[in-house]
Amino acid sequence: MNTQTDNPTGEQAEARSIGVAVLGMGNVGTEVVRILDESAADLRARVGADLVLRGVAVRDLAKPRKIDAALLTTDPEALVTRDDVDIVVELMGGIDPARALIRKALESGKSVVTANKALLAEYTGELATAAASARADLYFEAAVAGAIPVIRPLTQSLAGDTVERVAGIVNGTTNFILSAMAETGADYADTLAEAGRLGYAEADPTADVEGYDAAAKAAILASIAFHTRVTAADVYREGISAVTADDLVAARKFDCTIKLLAICERVRDAEGAQSVSARVYPALIPLTHPLASVNGAFNAIVVEAQNAGRLMFYGQGAGGAPTASAVLGDLVMAARNKVNGGRGPLESTYASLPISSIDDVPTRYYVSMRVADRPGVLAQIANEFSKRSVSLAAVRQEGAGDDARLNVVTHRAPDSAQSECVAALEDMDAVIKVSSVLRLEGTDD
Amino acid sequence: MNTQTDNPTGEQAEARSIGVAVLGMGNVGTEVVRILDESAADLRARVGADLVLRGVAVRDLAKPRKIDAALLTTDPEALVTRDDVDIVVELMGGIDPARALIRKALESGKSVVTANKALLAEYTGELATAAASARADLYFEAAVAGAIPVIRPLTQSLAGDTVERVAGIVNGTTNFILSAMAETGADYADTLAEAGRLGYAEADPTADVEGYDAAAKAAILASIAFHTRVTAADVYREGISAVTADDLVAARKFDCTIKLLAICERVRDAEGAQSVSARVYPALIPLTHPLASVNGAFNAIVVEAQNAGRLMFYGQGAGGAPTASAVLGDLVMAARNKVNGGRGPLESTYASLPISSIDDVPTRYYVSMRVADRPGVLAQIANEFSKRSVSLAAVRQEGAGDDARLNVVTHRAPDSAQSECVAALEDMDAVIKVSSVLRLEGTDD
Repeated sequence: MNTQTDNPTGEQAEARSIGVAVLGMGNVGTEVVRILDESAADLRARVGADLVLRGVAVRDLAKPRKIDAALLTTDPEALVTRDDVDIVVELMGGIDPARALIRKALESGKSVVTANKALLAEYTGELATAAASARADLYFEAAVAGAIPVIRPLTQSLAGDTVERVAGIVNGTTNFILSAMAETGADYADTLAEAGRLGYAEADPTADVEGYDAAAKAAILASIAFHTRVTAADVYREGISAVTADDLVAARKFDCTIKLLAICERVRDAEGAQSVSARVYPALIPLTHPLASVNGAFNAIVVEAQNAGRLMFYGQGAGGAPTASAVLGDLVMAARNKVNGGRGPLESTYASLPISSIDDVPTRYYVSMRVADRPGVLAQIANEFSKRSVSLAAVRQEGAGDDARLNVVTHRAPDSAQSECVAALEDMDAVIKVSSVLRLEGTDD
Repeated sequence: MNTQTDNPTGEQAEARSIGVAVLGMGNVGTEVVRILDESAADLRARVGADLVLRGVAVRDLAKPRKIDAALLTTDPEALVTRDDVDIVVELMGGIDPARALIRKALESGKSVVTANKALLAEYTGELATAAASARADLYFEAAVAGAIPVIRPLTQSLAGDTVERVAGIVNGTTNFILSAMAETGADYADTLAEAGRLGYAEADPTADVEGYDAAAKAAILASIAFHTRVTAADVYREGISAVTADDLVAARKFDCTIKLLAICERVRDAEGAQSVSARVYPALIPLTHPLASVNGAFNAIVVEAQNAGRLMFYGQGAGGAPTASAVLGDLVMAARNKVNGGRGPLESTYASLPISSIDDVPTRYYVSMRVADRPGVLAQIANEFSKRSVSLAAVRQEGAGDDARLNVVTHRAPDSAQSECVAALEDMDAVIKVSSVLRLEGTDD
């Protein structure tokens, strides 16, 4: 049955099996355990050895689970150092104790597969160093965009190219909310509540709606794309809680929609010096942009590289089974390396580019304001932009009298100049209220 | 500068360099040589050693090229066995002499990177066996869909999942032609001529328009997705030369467009026995399907797996620089393996599923026919389908009198039953001419 040509000389595959420890048995852990069982024969053929589950660390032994109770333990420290464990799959989330457990596993020579974006966004350097010292693998495809292969394409497929930009929708909760707002016209609070009822938003949605989750993923993507260590603290971040139903209507009038984007960009200044910008914010994007039609809880990532051009990766960014698929892919590769020797690529930070300040990054703005309905107001407003060398790309006047509004979209200029314009508008007598400020992305100019 | 954590102990990287031989200096070869030169510093940091071009085999030494003439040779046999060559990049295309040269390179312990889909679609088994014996790498990301990472995601990222279907637009020439026909209403011959003028079709377009190129890619994709050896001869194939402007108009009325699809499917019969279907043909797909909006020379591949769900990969499927990007990614990975040890996954055919006949595959048909304009014709036609247990999903009558047409779309049934219906229609008095028969894909029912 096994005609894998990796073993063409007909040597018997070693009888040894690869021991797997799983830390955490939530949605993803439960799926990983299920697939290890149900796909055991396929996994054996692909690895060249049995993948054997040695134990699963959980917090509560009493909780009913579909697993042989003898495999459960509340002592993850002991589990990750067991002699019969070769690979540790960390699915607990959070920094502590995941960080110490992964370090301990690596220092014991175990390879590690993790989906822990928050941890990686802070401590990839530390963990990669530990993995390299132990000559072990550290894989984390599942940490960004669930089932969508993006870490491996960036580290391997594009290893001979120069990445210019990675821009993506990497958070399903916020994409569900913004898609629903665009479709129904409902406001943010109602849509968030609905997302919670449908299971798309957690009881405390802060990490999602304020962009922390997306920022962690942006840090991981930027690190890999630009061979530079980027941590969550380096990522400029705004969430979606200030996006209004009116903004979505206004965006539509500019032939745009609004998405929470994670953007990782190679920035070149006038002298050609390079830096890395990593940022997360809700932005207008043209309806014709490939990310504009990514709706609901789906994720998509656009990669632009010098030679490859523009690539897009699309799929399910969250959920137990899709995330488990990514974990299992990493697990099979780590297990193959245990059987055949070799290791996957680790963190590479040779380029060590500086991190750009958001102030210096060229951006485009959308500003919506209530204005006095009298002659000359537009000229005054245009003058405030002009004074700071920001030019207007489009202006739309809406309503009249007490409800007169002006929505403007600017051309590209340093973000600091754009935000100074907004501050100046807020001081103008003719501007009653600046109600929304968003950026515009996905245009060539 | 080099802070790659792969080497955290501070050992000096070996001074050794990795020698590269390139066979063929057409569009892709020229770009590979350019990138090796222009990106030398980045490539060195990523590999951990210099990538040094040892020679380029060409047919005509006199042709002017942007390369040191001392690197050119007309003796590829000598080049691929040189002691200072570690990796051979084969970009000649065609079966001979590429096949013998790759074998020779592998048998000499060189790793091989190739973009040669025609060769792989016939001889992957032979080449993979040679690579395995030599413990060398055989990489071919560039053979399918140019810059779009799809081989590596299928072999590595989805290594722990079960792929159900791979369906894609993998030929830029035919997609350019069908997109242009849909947009302009022009007929096939004129559009093909225009594609030739614009450089999107070759002087002899047979390999593209008759689906041979797509069939080779389908064989490669099916082999990898289903761990089963599938060769080009196993792929059912129809080209696009019979698609008419009328078909595109009719497709639109069924809310569809027409694309040349490569489809690789895990087929289960009523008893659950599995087989592999690989097929290439122009098909109607709903306008809402993700592949429907892939236009021009772009490629896209949709992968459906049990746990990952539906993934899509999109980008430039051809062209010198995009294809070179894929080649360089493989080259860097093969070079890393030379430096660090280890190998990428090779062909895996452990599942060895049987190949389905197209006759047994459940398909849906679109049939367009000129009919006699008299009462009872539709009933007679419907009866021919019904007799063979094929039910009609939609019927549209167009025109009247001498130009009366009937366009029908069927529900799913074995392809043999569908084609028997068509044969029966051709024998009917009431049917003047069956003018088009295409399949319908991308629907759930």
